[in-house]
Amino acid sequence: MMSGIGHANPLTAYGLDELRRRRSAKWREYPPDVLPVWVAEMDTPLAPPIVDALAAAVARGDTGYASPGALPEAFAGFAARRFGWRPDPESVRLVPDVMSGIVEILGNITEPGDQVVINTPAYPPYFHWLPKIGRRIAASPLALTAGGHRLDLSDLERCFAGGAAAFLLCSPHNPTGLVFTEQELLAVAELADRYGVRVITDEIHGPLVYPGATFVPFATLDATAAERSITVTSASKAWNLAGLKAAVAVFGPGAQADLGALDEEISAAAGLLGVIAAEAAFTAGEPWLDDLLTGLDANRRLLGELLSEHLPEAGYQPPQATYLAWLDLRALGLGEDPAAWFLRKGGVALYSGPHFGPEGAGHARFNFATTPTLLTEAVQRMAAALHS
Amino acid sequence: MMSGIGHANPLTAYGLDELRRRRSAKWREYPPDVLPVWVAEMDTPLAPPIVDALAAAVARGDTGYASPGALPEAFAGFAARRFGWRPDPESVRLVPDVMSGIVEILGNITEPGDQVVINTPAYPPYFHWLPKIGRRIAASPLALTAGGHRLDLSDLERCFAGGAAAFLLCSPHNPTGLVFTEQELLAVAELADRYGVRVITDEIHGPLVYPGATFVPFATLDATAAERSITVTSASKAWNLAGLKAAVAVFGPGAQADLGALDEEISAAAGLLGVIAAEAAFTAGEPWLDDLLTGLDANRRLLGELLSEHLPEAGYQPPQATYLAWLDLRALGLGEDPAAWFLRKGGVALYSGPHFGPEGAGHARFNFATTPTLLTEAVQRMAAALHS
Repeated sequence: MMSGIGHANPLTAYGLDELRRRRSAKWREYPPDVLPVWVAEMDTPLAPPIVDALAAAVARGDTGYASPGALPEAFAGFAARRFGWRPDPESVRLVPDVMSGIVEILGNITEPGDQVVINTPAYPPYFHWLPKIGRRIAASPLALTAGGHRLDLSDLERCFAGGAAAFLLCSPHNPTGLVFTEQELLAVAELADRYGVRVITDEIHGPLVYPGATFVPFATLDATAAERSITVTSASKAWNLAGLKAAVAVFGPGAQADLGALDEEISAAAGLLGVIAAEAAFTAGEPWLDDLLTGLDANRRLLGELLSEHLPEAGYQPPQATYLAWLDLRALGLGEDPAAWFLRKGGVALYSGPHFGPEGAGHARFNFATTPTLLTEAVQRMAAALHS
Repeated sequence: MMSGIGHANPLTAYGLDELRRRRSAKWREYPPDVLPVWVAEMDTPLAPPIVDALAAAVARGDTGYASPGALPEAFAGFAARRFGWRPDPESVRLVPDVMSGIVEILGNITEPGDQVVINTPAYPPYFHWLPKIGRRIAASPLALTAGGHRLDLSDLERCFAGGAAAFLLCSPHNPTGLVFTEQELLAVAELADRYGVRVITDEIHGPLVYPGATFVPFATLDATAAERSITVTSASKAWNLAGLKAAVAVFGPGAQADLGALDEEISAAAGLLGVIAAEAAFTAGEPWLDDLLTGLDANRRLLGELLSEHLPEAGYQPPQATYLAWLDLRALGLGEDPAAWFLRKGGVALYSGPHFGPEGAGHARFNFATTPTLLTEAVQRMAAALHS
C-alpha cells in the first residue's frame, strides 16, 4: 500500500491521472476535462500514521459503530503541543463533523428566532444550516483594509448590541485565511461578556497556520466568554479526512451544562474510521503536517507569482492560514460570479464567491492544496480563457 | 492485508483476542471482561471486495467529501438481482445513515406535531429521534401469537384512523426478525391508501433473510402507497459498515416531489469510504453475503440449541431475518431489564429490552453475529450467572 513515505512534500506525490481516479466530491463533481480547485480537499496522500491505522482497522474488520476511544486524549495532546492549550479530555466530545456539531450545539445554547453572528464572507454551509434550524443570521462583514481583511470590532459590537445570542467565530477564517491576533480575540471576548453573547468557534483550520502568524485558540483566553465557549474542530482539513466523519466539540469549564445537554446519539452519526484516523493524526501526524505546511507555504507564494504573471488584475492577499485563496476578481469584469465564467470558458472549477455572502460578488475561492503543476495549469487556464 | 479469503464462514475467522483489539462501540462500550452481544455489529472480517476497495481508496488518498458516484446504480443492480426490484437510479439518493435519512425525510413529508406510527417493540433510536424533530409516536404493537410476532393489521388501522400522518415501517422488523408477507404488506398499503398515510420503510435488514422467508420490498407492491413510498436502506447491516456512514433513500415514482425537497447538504454528512464500501458490497458482495447467511443461519439454530440446553426458561423464536434474537426472559424473574442483570452478574452485554418500548419489559436483544465459540460462551455465562 502506498503510504507517501519518501515524499518530503505531500503535494508532489500524485499526478493528474492518479487524482482523476478519486471518488471524492472534488474530483467527481465536474467532468474530467475540468480542473477542480473548489472544495477544501487536498491532492495529497494520507499521512503514513493514518494509512497504517486505517489498514489495521480494515484488516481487523473494525467498521462498526463509532466510539470516541482515545480521541479526546489525542486531541488534548495535540492542542497542548501545538497551541499550548490543555483542554480537559473529559470535556472533549465526538461529533460527526464540525458543521453538524455546530448545528447541534447552537440548537441547545440558543432559541428559535435567535440571532447568530457570523463574519462575512463566510463558509457557505453556515448560510444553509442556521436558517434551517430557525436561527437568524446577523452578518458582520470583515473590514477590508489596504493590508487585507481584518476583524471589524465596531461592527461586531453593533451586532452584539443588536441582540445577538451567539457568535459563530470561524478562526482562522474561511475563506479569507485571516488569523486573528490575541488582542483581537480578547476584544471579542470582552464584547461577548459585555453583551452576554455566547461564543462558539469553528477552529477547523487551526493546524494550518503559516510562519508569521500565530493561532490562538479562543478557549485559551483569560476571559469569561472564553471559559464559556465551545470549540468545534477536526483533523479533517489538515489531514484531508472530510469523508471519514469525525470531529470534536470542546466545552470550556463554564460550558459544562452545555456538555451535559449534548445529544449523545449524535456521536452514533460519526464515522469509526474517522475516529481512528483522527486519533492517528493528532497523535503521530505532526511531522507530516509540518511537511505539508512547508509545501502549502510554497504553493501560497507560487500562486501569488502565477497570478502576478498571468492574471495581474486579480486581487490576492496570501492567506495567513488555510489552503484557500480568496480572490478578488472584480477588476476582470466577469460579473457577480467569476467562478461560473472560468468553469464555462476555462475548464477550471473555483468555488463561487456569491455562495460566501454578498461580499463574495466578483470573488472566488481557489484551493491551492494541489500539486505545483496543477496549480500552475489552473492559473494558466484561467488566464488563457480571459485573454482569448 | 487480511481479507477473509479462505473463510467459507465469515463468522469463524476471528478469535476473541483479535476482536478485543477493535475500536468499535460493540467492543469498547464495556470493560474487557464483558462479552458484548448488544449493538448490531458483526464479528466478521470485511468481504474481500470491500477490503480491496477500501485499500485502493486509502492508497490514492481518497478521503475527501462524499460523492454518490455509482452507488445508486450499484444499489439498483443489487435490488434487481436479489429482490426483483428495479428502482430508477435517478431516484436513489445518498444519505449518511438510515436513521438520519428517515429523520430528514419525515421532517419533509410530515408536519410538527404529526403522528408517526411505528410497530413496537421498536429500534430504540426511533424513540429518540421522532420526538426530537417534534413528531409524536403512535405505537402499534406487533401481535404476539403462539407462532411468534405478527403484524396486527387491526391495530395498525386504529392508528391510521386516529390521524397518523406517516407509517415508519421497519421491514424486516428489528428486534423481532419478522419478515412480513406480501399479503400483509399489501394490506398495509391498502390501509395507507384508505387513510392517506405516507409510508417510509427502513429496509436495512432486507439482505439478511433466511431460507423459508421471502423479503418483499414495500416499493415493489402494486399499490398507490407503494408508489408514494420512500425506502431507506444501507449495506451497513449486511456487510458490517455502520461506522462508514453511507445509506440510500429511494423515492418511488409517486414521491418525486419529496426527492426534490431532500436537502442536498445532507449528503455532505455521508462518508466517502462508506460510499466506496457500499458500492463494492452491492456490486460484488453477494457471494460473501451468501456465506455469511449460511453461517448466521447455523448460529440462529445453535442459539436455539444452547438456550434449550442451558436456559430453557428463555423464550426464543428464531428470527426470519436479521442476526438479532429477541429473547423473552420474563420467566426468569429478573425484572424489567434482564440485560442489566446479565451484565452485572454474568459479564454479558445484551441490549436492554425496555429501550425497545413497553413491550420490551423482561426482554433483551441478543446479537448472534459472532463466532459459534463466543455465542456458546455468552449463553453459558448467562446460564452460570442464573444458576449460581
